[in-house]
Amino acid sequence: MSGSTFGKIFKVSTFGESHGLAIGATIDGCPAGLSIDPQLIAKDMQRRRPGQSKITTQRKEADEVEIISGVFEGKSTGTPIHLLIKNKDQRSRDYSHIKDKFRPSHADFTYTAKYGHRDYRGGGRSSARETAARVAAGAIAKMLLNKHDIKIWAYVSQVGHIQLDKHYKKLNLELTETNIIRCPDPQIAEKMIQLVSEIRKQGDTIGGCISCIIQNCPAGLGEPVFDKLHAELGKAMLSINAVKAFEYGSGFAASQMKGSEHNDQFHSEENAIRTTTNHSGGIQGGISNGMDIHFKVGFKPVATIVKAQSSVNQLGEKVQVEGKGRHDPCVVPRAVPIVEAMAALVLADHLLRARSNRI
Amino acid sequence: MSGSTFGKIFKVSTFGESHGLAIGATIDGCPAGLSIDPQLIAKDMQRRRPGQSKITTQRKEADEVEIISGVFEGKSTGTPIHLLIKNKDQRSRDYSHIKDKFRPSHADFTYTAKYGHRDYRGGGRSSARETAARVAAGAIAKMLLNKHDIKIWAYVSQVGHIQLDKHYKKLNLELTETNIIRCPDPQIAEKMIQLVSEIRKQGDTIGGCISCIIQNCPAGLGEPVFDKLHAELGKAMLSINAVKAFEYGSGFAASQMKGSEHNDQFHSEENAIRTTTNHSGGIQGGISNGMDIHFKVGFKPVATIVKAQSSVNQLGEKVQVEGKGRHDPCVVPRAVPIVEAMAALVLADHLLRARSNRI
Amino acid sequence: MSGSTFGKIFKVSTFGESHGLAIGATIDGCPAGLSIDPQLIAKDMQRRRPGQSKITTQRKEADEVEIISGVFEGKSTGTPIHLLIKNKDQRSRDYSHIKDKFRPSHADFTYTAKYGHRDYRGGGRSSARETAARVAAGAIAKMLLNKHDIKIWAYVSQVGHIQLDKHYKKLNLELTETNIIRCPDPQIAEKMIQLVSEIRKQGDTIGGCISCIIQNCPAGLGEPVFDKLHAELGKAMLSINAVKAFEYGSGFAASQMKGSEHNDQFHSEENAIRTTTNHSGGIQGGISNGMDIHFKVGFKPVATIVKAQSSVNQLGEKVQVEGKGRHDPCVVPRAVPIVEAMAALVLADHLLRARSNRI
Amino acid sequence: MSGSTFGKIFKVSTFGESHGLAIGATIDGCPAGLSIDPQLIAKDMQRRRPGQSKITTQRKEADEVEIISGVFEGKSTGTPIHLLIKNKDQRSRDYSHIKDKFRPSHADFTYTAKYGHRDYRGGGRSSARETAARVAAGAIAKMLLNKHDIKIWAYVSQVGHIQLDKHYKKLNLELTETNIIRCPDPQIAEKMIQLVSEIRKQGDTIGGCISCIIQNCPAGLGEPVFDKLHAELGKAMLSINAVKAFEYGSGFAASQMKGSEHNDQFHSEENAIRTTTNHSGGIQGGISNGMDIHFKVGFKPVATIVKAQSSVNQLGEKVQVEGKGRHDPCVVPRAVPIVEAMAALVLADHLLRARSNRI
Repeated sequence: MSGSTFGKIFKVSTFGESHGLAIGATIDGCPAGLSIDPQLIAKDMQRRRPGQSKITTQRKEADEVEIISGVFEGKSTGTPIHLLIKNKDQRSRDYSHIKDKFRPSHADFTYTAKYGHRDYRGGGRSSARETAARVAAGAIAKMLLNKHDIKIWAYVSQVGHIQLDKHYKKLNLELTETNIIRCPDPQIAEKMIQLVSEIRKQGDTIGGCISCIIQNCPAGLGEPVFDKLHAELGKAMLSINAVKAFEYGSGFAASQMKGSEHNDQFHSEENAIRTTTNHSGGIQGGISNGMDIHFKVGFKPVATIVKAQSSVNQLGEKVQVEGKGRHDPCVVPRAVPIVEAMAALVLADHLLRARSNRI
Repeated sequence: MSGSTFGKIFKVSTFGESHGLAIGATIDGCPAGLSIDPQLIAKDMQRRRPGQSKITTQRKEADEVEIISGVFEGKSTGTPIHLLIKNKDQRSRDYSHIKDKFRPSHADFTYTAKYGHRDYRGGGRSSARETAARVAAGAIAKMLLNKHDIKIWAYVSQVGHIQLDKHYKKLNLELTETNIIRCPDPQIAEKMIQLVSEIRKQGDTIGGCISCIIQNCPAGLGEPVFDKLHAELGKAMLSINAVKAFEYGSGFAASQMKGSEHNDQFHSEENAIRTTTNHSGGIQGGISNGMDIHFKVGFKPVATIVKAQSSVNQLGEKVQVEGKGRHDPCVVPRAVPIVEAMAALVLADHLLRARSNRI
Repeated sequence: MSGSTFGKIFKVSTFGESHGLAIGATIDGCPAGLSIDPQLIAKDMQRRRPGQSKITTQRKEADEVEIISGVFEGKSTGTPIHLLIKNKDQRSRDYSHIKDKFRPSHADFTYTAKYGHRDYRGGGRSSARETAARVAAGAIAKMLLNKHDIKIWAYVSQVGHIQLDKHYKKLNLELTETNIIRCPDPQIAEKMIQLVSEIRKQGDTIGGCISCIIQNCPAGLGEPVFDKLHAELGKAMLSINAVKAFEYGSGFAASQMKGSEHNDQFHSEENAIRTTTNHSGGIQGGISNGMDIHFKVGFKPVATIVKAQSSVNQLGEKVQVEGKGRHDPCVVPRAVPIVEAMAALVLADHLLRARSNRI
Repeated sequence: MSGSTFGKIFKVSTFGESHGLAIGATIDGCPAGLSIDPQLIAKDMQRRRPGQSKITTQRKEADEVEIISGVFEGKSTGTPIHLLIKNKDQRSRDYSHIKDKFRPSHADFTYTAKYGHRDYRGGGRSSARETAARVAAGAIAKMLLNKHDIKIWAYVSQVGHIQLDKHYKKLNLELTETNIIRCPDPQIAEKMIQLVSEIRKQGDTIGGCISCIIQNCPAGLGEPVFDKLHAELGKAMLSINAVKAFEYGSGFAASQMKGSEHNDQFHSEENAIRTTTNHSGGIQGGISNGMDIHFKVGFKPVATIVKAQSSVNQLGEKVQVEGKGRHDPCVVPRAVPIVEAMAALVLADHLLRARSNRI
């Protein structure tokens, strides 16, 4: 129960360390009869892979996903879908110098405190490499959601102090993939890219935010009490490496609002019941109401920096730590497909859970 | 699987509707031999109960918790601890006027969309009354945590635009319970109380924030991937009624920071490894590092307001909705013990999960 | 995680000790819109209750089931259905003499070994009284199954050496409830009743078997690997107090058969595919095939006997133990509704699980 | 939620089809610091592998287990241990003739009924090949149990009408692996081998039984209500392909016994509390009592036979089915390590669950 499984019906488990033989995911609970398109998996893997642009880590990983089981003649069989991604560019030697040192704001210390020893190569299980397996599984969740016309759009809405303030309805979300930072506003994107390039030159890193919109989610997904849809989305996002904050709908801003301002009034529109505003972010009482679901995720700056830092080793002795591994100056451009994948896993699970709502 | 269970080893399930016969909780997985003090349960129930001050709803509920099972001669037996809270002040007639109307920003519409019908009395299962059961269960989790010296302090850090900006280390957290808004800074508390009183007179409501500090949490709690400690805390908090946002450690502010600013450097201190700063909020790689855990939770304004609002009924016809039920002008003072309870449930669960970390 | 929850979607949790304030069950996952008939619950409770005939324990318990939550205007709401059964005839004094003694073949020793202390009154949580909560929950599961015409028939097929050898198809299962031993063959029933009466006079107890037939189960319930339908039924039955053995279809007899004898050949019949024989007991590869499901459950003799027995106390000192509490001479007549209830819980859960078989 | 996960803390998930690229298992919840010996995995794989003797299928499979993750420098890290077994000798062409036919007493029909289509090659996911993954995972569970001196011995106790009637205490269990049928009594073993050889020549198959003894299990494992230790063992065994029956301790024979005969009286022995007899099979009230745990598992004859059988195809039309694939004449010799593996998974899980018994 090391916490490597997500979901209750559409259940995804991941395994693997950064520099082990392979990483991967198993989906147990994908309904039978779903057409599985390996191209769609590859496409999302491309969006997450290292080395994709000048503002990401230059580490190279092919990240080819092999479908080992659960798919027959192009369709899911209802049995576990096993996805295997071999690790190729391992360079374990890069990490021997941190074998017994605790890198600041990494998981080296906490894994050692918890388990007594750790696979120190590239962070082992704590590496963001694990998220490649989530993206692969998420791509299959998206295929299921597509059958129900549910569409997920994530994009970078902040890098350092540069924010994209426009309401998402005023953005052309199709533009997100047209630039390397994945921001749908080309002018803001340019500024963000410039900032990341500067930070990169400094050998430093910078934080950022990703916003996510889910369209066409039917009303009725999510559960009343603990498994509220936004609570599940929140957990999903907070489980992504480097995430520090989550808000949905009006978010923290709601804490400054009055009820009379914040309430979303209902009206009828083309035979559907809709709300006039959407401070609820598409979720009321933990259950989707058919409006767009929208939320925002805050990421800290990547912990690996070139600059020397003070730390301790396993004996508690003072040491210096310097970043030698290849790393990202800013995590958000590569995290866009990860946010989408986790959102897809939550929705796919609740889509299936909702099948038992009524007799 | 209506999502009414929380936790994997220390598992809590709640049941009950606002105006049914009773609500309650069952804890399955409390270790045997724990001294159960009903006074400590009663104390937290008092902190949550309606009618406790002029700035809360005037609804009266005794909220007496009966321990039905799992405790023998004052000690837990290891079998399910069942906690029953009878509903006394029901006044169901207050709600007949909203039988077939959807109140704005309530769960009336989504429950109907999901289940086809709903217990409309006082919001039924969607009512914050459900959280009384969480507080009762949380009180028992706190008893387990106390055995390990783990202490949880929640307090109101914002109401509307009035913020408590001081770092928590500069506050005397013992003062939290000395005022009715539950803010440990008496001057700020006064301003908050004044604001809530004004809002109340307007028949309106206002949002707010609660901050929470967990002291003496040992290093090693939390799991590597999906069940990261902060992801579990985030889900726990987001599952509380009216919560819209969660951040831990540096939170959203981290998105504007550089790695060189944000990283928490390690040093040795009295035979323990500590960090010099604590942007990590006591959690690294999803696992506690022995520093204080701290997080912040954003609440929206209560949806029930006196002012008439436009809405629709079950047929989609336009109607007016007016708040008649007794309600809180601001949810945060009563939510302080709820935040603590949910934090306690997460920690109790992970304390037990950690027992299988090593052979 | 004391093992008090059963099922994955239609999840039932029980709580309570034999001589505590109450016992009960919570069903989390019953679909909304199910008509809940309290009479049907009461009917099954009557079949299980003590004191119902001369061959059961003379302990009296009203076993009234209160529906505390999850039902509104006669229909399930989709939220947890909480069922409460108060303990009335407690007579705790009956048990003080065994406070620190370990009764042979009871759970006194193992509970103490596991938990350090125990509620010794009437066996506490280990008492078969807990099964009253299962019967109440099972009655609701049956209401769901009835909607799909699935019918469950359990009956006593053996008491001591007296066996009902006839194939179930030659029995009139409607006769089961016409006699106090619950055997559908009146002649055999008479012999069984006589044997139990004799055993009772001796202050002794006797074992027996219950057979169970499930009709109209659709093909496709059950899961491929670990959660095979018969494995779940087996676990369900083995979790009932005093059960020592489970077999389905051809059972242990299959171990003496050849494949050519045992295989069930398929044929078409009225547009359905059926098997000519049914050694498979209605389940192939762990999944129902649309034929009758049938299985048999073996019960040991009740451990409480009047005769003095040698044992030890908590200090390991030799002591004598004599049965003083009121007890059943043979558990099987009262266990018939328990077997049905557990079968119903398994089927209700898999009926809902099957809703995610296909896209 | 296709039922491919077993256990709650020591959780094992398997994946893969008989003729896919690979099968395998992931263990999520193995404590850190366990020495993992690949030789011990290989040894159990050898005991299960096809082609090991003249009385098993002649299909050849190398069944090499690759440890992909979760083990570093020879020790478990606490993160998921992923075990991959590539399929080599696939010969898919052998199965094209049954593509649209339902083989009697196989899972072809039920998988199709459930999922709409199926991987028909060698039974796909329903093939006993899946149990190779269980044996690999079980070998690791055994390593954990070895640390606590818990030892599991399974052996063949019946083939067709040939039974090993001796009490297990009179057997030398070390002899089990000295013959190809895996029966610890050499004379009986010889008769069993002869019978299987004859059956094989007839192109037929035969059922059998496996008995299992667990020594040195500490008192206190297993949970009070649904997750009784024997209920979990029962489910584990019933989930193995071809199993039809399970009994523990006195088993079905208990149904003919009196309480005065059946009760196991306690006495003190070398500072431990023991029972004089062991009809309880080492488990009382669902919890281990420190005596040997013993149980028996009944297997049906393998469904694949050479003889032509009548059946139907997917259209319901009458067809003939003839066994062409290579198959076992009797499943029990190869099932011995599978029974042990599943027993090991149950015990490893409950060993860890028991860590939360007490504060």
